[in-house]
Amino acid sequence: MRASAFHISTIKEAPNDAEIASHQLMIRAGMIRKLAGGIYNYMPLGLRTIRKIENIIREEMNAAGALELLMPVVQPAELWQESGRWEKYGPELLRIKDRHGRDFILQPTSEEVITDIARNEIKSWRQLPVNFYHIQTKFRDERRPRFGVMRGREFTMKDAYSFDRDVDGAMQSYQAMFDAYHKIFTRLGLNFRAVAADTGSIGGSSSHEFQVIADIGEDLIVYDPRTDYAANIELAAAPCLIEKRAAAGQDLCKVHTPGAATCEEVKNLLSIDLSRTVKSIVLATEPADSDPQIWLLLLRGDHDLNEIKVGKLAGFEEGFRFATEDEIKEHFGSPPGYLGPVGLDDRVKVIADLTVANMNDFVCGANEAPYHLQGVNWGRDLPEPLLVADIRNVVAGDPTPDGKGVLNIQRGIEVGHVFYLGTKYSEALKATYLDETGKPAFMEMGCYGIGVTRIVGAAIEQNHDERGIIWPRAIAPFEVAVCGLGWGKSDAVRETATKLYEELKSQGVDVILDDRDLRPGVMFAEWELIGVPIRITVGDRGLANGQVEVLGRRESNAELVDLPDVVARVAAKLSSRVT
Amino acid sequence: MRASAFHISTIKEAPNDAEIASHQLMIRAGMIRKLAGGIYNYMPLGLRTIRKIENIIREEMNAAGALELLMPVVQPAELWQESGRWEKYGPELLRIKDRHGRDFILQPTSEEVITDIARNEIKSWRQLPVNFYHIQTKFRDERRPRFGVMRGREFTMKDAYSFDRDVDGAMQSYQAMFDAYHKIFTRLGLNFRAVAADTGSIGGSSSHEFQVIADIGEDLIVYDPRTDYAANIELAAAPCLIEKRAAAGQDLCKVHTPGAATCEEVKNLLSIDLSRTVKSIVLATEPADSDPQIWLLLLRGDHDLNEIKVGKLAGFEEGFRFATEDEIKEHFGSPPGYLGPVGLDDRVKVIADLTVANMNDFVCGANEAPYHLQGVNWGRDLPEPLLVADIRNVVAGDPTPDGKGVLNIQRGIEVGHVFYLGTKYSEALKATYLDETGKPAFMEMGCYGIGVTRIVGAAIEQNHDERGIIWPRAIAPFEVAVCGLGWGKSDAVRETATKLYEELKSQGVDVILDDRDLRPGVMFAEWELIGVPIRITVGDRGLANGQVEVLGRRESNAELVDLPDVVARVAAKLSSRVT
Repeated sequence: MRASAFHISTIKEAPNDAEIASHQLMIRAGMIRKLAGGIYNYMPLGLRTIRKIENIIREEMNAAGALELLMPVVQPAELWQESGRWEKYGPELLRIKDRHGRDFILQPTSEEVITDIARNEIKSWRQLPVNFYHIQTKFRDERRPRFGVMRGREFTMKDAYSFDRDVDGAMQSYQAMFDAYHKIFTRLGLNFRAVAADTGSIGGSSSHEFQVIADIGEDLIVYDPRTDYAANIELAAAPCLIEKRAAAGQDLCKVHTPGAATCEEVKNLLSIDLSRTVKSIVLATEPADSDPQIWLLLLRGDHDLNEIKVGKLAGFEEGFRFATEDEIKEHFGSPPGYLGPVGLDDRVKVIADLTVANMNDFVCGANEAPYHLQGVNWGRDLPEPLLVADIRNVVAGDPTPDGKGVLNIQRGIEVGHVFYLGTKYSEALKATYLDETGKPAFMEMGCYGIGVTRIVGAAIEQNHDERGIIWPRAIAPFEVAVCGLGWGKSDAVRETATKLYEELKSQGVDVILDDRDLRPGVMFAEWELIGVPIRITVGDRGLANGQVEVLGRRESNAELVDLPDVVARVAAKLSSRVT
Repeated sequence: MRASAFHISTIKEAPNDAEIASHQLMIRAGMIRKLAGGIYNYMPLGLRTIRKIENIIREEMNAAGALELLMPVVQPAELWQESGRWEKYGPELLRIKDRHGRDFILQPTSEEVITDIARNEIKSWRQLPVNFYHIQTKFRDERRPRFGVMRGREFTMKDAYSFDRDVDGAMQSYQAMFDAYHKIFTRLGLNFRAVAADTGSIGGSSSHEFQVIADIGEDLIVYDPRTDYAANIELAAAPCLIEKRAAAGQDLCKVHTPGAATCEEVKNLLSIDLSRTVKSIVLATEPADSDPQIWLLLLRGDHDLNEIKVGKLAGFEEGFRFATEDEIKEHFGSPPGYLGPVGLDDRVKVIADLTVANMNDFVCGANEAPYHLQGVNWGRDLPEPLLVADIRNVVAGDPTPDGKGVLNIQRGIEVGHVFYLGTKYSEALKATYLDETGKPAFMEMGCYGIGVTRIVGAAIEQNHDERGIIWPRAIAPFEVAVCGLGWGKSDAVRETATKLYEELKSQGVDVILDDRDLRPGVMFAEWELIGVPIRITVGDRGLANGQVEVLGRRESNAELVDLPDVVARVAAKLSSRVT
């Protein structure tokens, strides 16, 4: 490709709504152009990267035995009603009507359609296992699309669905996809982590996210740097930090704490450690056919509530909310900020975090403003909690599950997800096969997604500097740019640059020849912004010694290379992890 | 690919709604599965063909210098309002609302979005010409989707858009696409014809359709078998068949024609040739601020009206309709069936087809039921027509434009279209560039579509027999099937078939190994239905002589080939046009 025949369109300033580096750089480099909120045109430069990502995914999915097909963007409502997601899916599911008034949706994923295909196509255990995937346009009508391709509304996703005879088979399919994902993200050149994850609304009981490590990531990853252990903070078990509850050492005492409504403020006022305070959080559930149930959840002052964990407790599965001020007043006789577990009647059910349950001599609200209680002890000053459970987020420094190290936390961008679905969809859509005894059985399913377009953003978040993008070789729009200095003036430059370009191309290098006769500064800045891994500069000065400059995108000093050695040098640099 | 690891799913009977061969065969071969009316899943087998088609298109588009990008399926209404198509496009344009109530459409084509891109990206004449294309999902909400992928609602289309500085440039871009399309359809292995076409509602003044010749085609192609001349019947000029009007030879005479309300019936009743009769068609236009205008159009009895041609006449550009019975009664004093041009007052404007204008002694309705006039002559019995114009369809046997031969007519399926658009969209969306003098000028545009999914259906219509599909090599889902007979029993069969399969694969042949241990009849019928160009049968009987059977899909007798010669024989057969 010659630059003069390609559409290169870099811009100096990113628009104001581009908040993060990848969004800014994708626009500045000319990879995407916004069409509407969360809807982008992929310009020729951006599409090159997209296609390389798709091809790597396709190769590894095929190698893992998955079969590519293509399911439509527009899908009939009936199937979504059968699965129940027509009702359950929120407004992110874009519902549309055709000219005859029939209901359709724009697919956010394709569990329903693939299960419909399976129930029609698969009759016998002999046809199992099978794993179908497609790489297709998805639509999710995000309330607030942002971060460019990271949280767009229209995007490209690879979604795969496995069908097996039994749980053992499903676990093998799951593992095959888990392994394929490792290969895919490794080949893409990303720094990633496979993380145990919550299964969310999609259901099922086993799930891993593939997270690209990046500071702007929306997910918190808890990991043990010494082992394989990694889990999304939503799921990561937070251990009890106090092995055994110590005996009471202090008397119960009510202290005047004006203006101190948070644990932090109480800690400062009383000059105690935050780890001696207990935080009260009041939740409400609404059981069918009875009044709302009020719950008091207790956390150590330096810990935060994990709502995902709460949602799995008995009584909370159908949903919960924070209690209203009126409900709090009625049950605690006090405004928020001074609440605690002492002296409650039995209408309030108390749940203590594992650590809180083993605390002694702690500080909590007095259920009277502006007072707190000091020297509070379980058993003596209040009954034991109704339930002791892990309801908090892990914090950095917590012990690892094996007790031998401490947990770290980092941020990640979810780019892949493997799910064991079980029979959730096959039961809803009655997708059965005949087993070896001739009896119908529900197919065991798994689903496996990769956000193709999101990978572009994630890769840039992980690989950029103040000058622009730094592409991993595998997904760079071009691997090498050959820049001719003084193109219009020097025959030697034109001839040598063109010859190098042709040689590299014949060696299978994805190379672009910059024949635009631009000023060197402009040309170099553009290729640095675009992030091409290697730049070769051909100029009269170097040619006088039979040399050209070869510069890796991460390097600051170009290397002078003799002309006969250039192709080999470029190949060696491209093969190294760091260019 | 091994058949046991692929999803082969043929069925015996096509569903009732599959009316044409390609629709029936695509379902029977397991290429597509219906999800909703006009919306299909592409199964793994079907997708293989789709991808091969896409790749050929992509290679030739790139070779022609076009740049691939990707525009979204969901597009904001604003751009369509700017172009005016939001109002003008009928109910095929699926209009949707997002969660915030904002209007969007699902793209049927992308003129608006690409013109928006061009006006933002292209500032200077130095950036022109440029040709952008994408291969993307399209949606047209057809009232009555049918014929499978031939007239679906969701489908894949390649659409390209060229931008030039002036008309000369646009014509060069047009010609480059015209040539690329020739290469594409030739590589696809299709029997096609490039046909001059009407520009329809999209506007512009130059247009060619690429039509795949097939009896079920919806388009009629007029062509000269001796030359390049070919045109859609909508556009094809229908010459005057009578060089010079002869003098009147008969007296005007009113004849009683009870029960004869059509030219055919009159011809039979009066025992005259149909070419002596004149057909009367009454149309109405509705000019702004005045009463409807009634028009009488006259055609020879054996000719049909061409509404596209009528729509281009002065006074008809804004649309027209057939006159109502009341309007006919009021203006002609007679019910339909007995109408004619004699004795009308000047409220009715008369247009004669070129041929009618040169007829003498003709027969037409008497404007009185049940009578016709015989021996009618222009000038003597009625005034010369207000307008003489080509308003009929060509019929087979009409003289060619050069007068040296006769026109033929065949049916075609439109699979590609090249359009010169001019400045229709660039003016509507104010897409200008600065010319060499620094002045803004509208970009000259062209647009170029290929129906990717429709090609599959068209290829099958052109290539099938009673046993199934007969694929052109380039788009066959597999080029060769190696079938092992008695797979489960014979080590020799398994080993030889596997070895042949591996050898062919290593030679770049797209081969599938049928290791399913099916009965020969079932297996052979399946590959014939699927339409794989070459089948190799490996059985113990042949192996006893060191031979296997090689059979082209169009052949009835297999060839026995010595094992060492098989790969070369297959390569030779694949290279020939006919397998």
